[in-house]
Amino acid sequence: MTLTVFADRMSQPSRAIIIFCKVNGIDFEEVRIDLAKRQQLTPQFQEITPMKKVPAIVDGRFKLFESHAILIYLACSFPGIADHWYPADLFLRAKIHSVLDWHHSNLRSGAAGYVLNSTLGPALGLPLNPEAAAKSEKLLSASLGKIESFWLKGRGRFLLGSTQPSIADLSLVCEIMQLELVDEKDRERILGPHKRVMKWVADTKNATSPHFDQVHSVLLKLKEKLQSERAVGETSQNVLPSKL
Amino acid sequence: MTLTVFADRMSQPSRAIIIFCKVNGIDFEEVRIDLAKRQQLTPQFQEITPMKKVPAIVDGRFKLFESHAILIYLACSFPGIADHWYPADLFLRAKIHSVLDWHHSNLRSGAAGYVLNSTLGPALGLPLNPEAAAKSEKLLSASLGKIESFWLKGRGRFLLGSTQPSIADLSLVCEIMQLELVDEKDRERILGPHKRVMKWVADTKNATSPHFDQVHSVLLKLKEKLQSERAVGETSQNVLPSKL
Repeated sequence: MTLTVFADRMSQPSRAIIIFCKVNGIDFEEVRIDLAKRQQLTPQFQEITPMKKVPAIVDGRFKLFESHAILIYLACSFPGIADHWYPADLFLRAKIHSVLDWHHSNLRSGAAGYVLNSTLGPALGLPLNPEAAAKSEKLLSASLGKIESFWLKGRGRFLLGSTQPSIADLSLVCEIMQLELVDEKDRERILGPHKRVMKWVADTKNATSPHFDQVHSVLLKLKEKLQSERAVGETSQNVLPSKL
Repeated sequence: MTLTVFADRMSQPSRAIIIFCKVNGIDFEEVRIDLAKRQQLTPQFQEITPMKKVPAIVDGRFKLFESHAILIYLACSFPGIADHWYPADLFLRAKIHSVLDWHHSNLRSGAAGYVLNSTLGPALGLPLNPEAAAKSEKLLSASLGKIESFWLKGRGRFLLGSTQPSIADLSLVCEIMQLELVDEKDRERILGPHKRVMKWVADTKNATSPHFDQVHSVLLKLKEKLQSERAVGETSQNVLPSKL
């Protein structure tokens, strides 16, 4: 029985699961749960997970949600997954758990909160909230600082000084990619000071090529759309005074 | 070399680690990091963890933070830990990861936010914030509802229908215990509707007796102190009108 991945590629944890499967040659069926159409709220999807969130998987009779739990499950239950994704070594594995746990209340919370409140909210039926966006940006910037100064310490190009990526690299980098949606000058302000983070994002992208870019193409299409809308908005604003 | 646990028993994840060690006969030295005195900000503690948060452990040359990562590490690295704490079975283990991941942005975020903003803030130098408390209460109540209706489904007394507790039971119940600090009527309003949750808290307490109560005694002392202060406050308020 094939693995089924319920996902929306607009969701950063969904993308991490899909890229992991593709990079590791895991055979799976992708079922799109369109968040913009609120398909995560349907009774059918609640049969898969009562939490009404993507991603979720069904593998035979086994259902699972929460992206980190899914990544670990996939790394342990499919044959031939290279050890670097989720090392068997007790100490390395513990450090990976530490990064993944830290992620929830730091980078994830900051980045998702910032993108939602500064840019993406209206597409999901929510208002923009500059105050919440500013609060999230603070957490996001502090988190990027910690990645730069602590998690990326060491000789390797990846988290924990590793020479090859783990599920933690994939999870965190997919989160950072969500910042592609925000205004160019905001992204530059937030990411610009973190050169090692930007290099690590590029390294993770390269290490999972061509799947990384393919899976992110939906996000990058929305980025273009939002850029065009902002350009039109700015032009209108520039034009307005002369019209008044 | 003995395991060192850096903790403040006022911190719910700290208590989970200490109880786990005691119940499982793990020899450890407890080093108190007094959060009320901001000892987590000292350069000495930053040598242990740059995140400035408890709990953290040092085991020989190995340092680790994030309580779930620590619980998993302890369950895997010390001999004789019963399997039910962190089952070797792939599917059970995946479900435990799912509960623990879910916890971060749900019960943990809701309960910690509610207690901090409604009650504990001033003790840590932060103002009370009724608006933030109300928002956190909503998340907390929804999380308790999900524990009641989903995570506690099944025949056993513990999460995931298990007959014996896992590290997830310990982590989540220690979080719920933090509600002991809030006003009795608020706790009743929040916990009252969730009878299965309250039974599960009692079952987890019993399964880890006498360590659970011993480790929580600091919290219960603060509870008494806060109750006395509230009683004095209410008496003053009742007396005021006749004095005016």
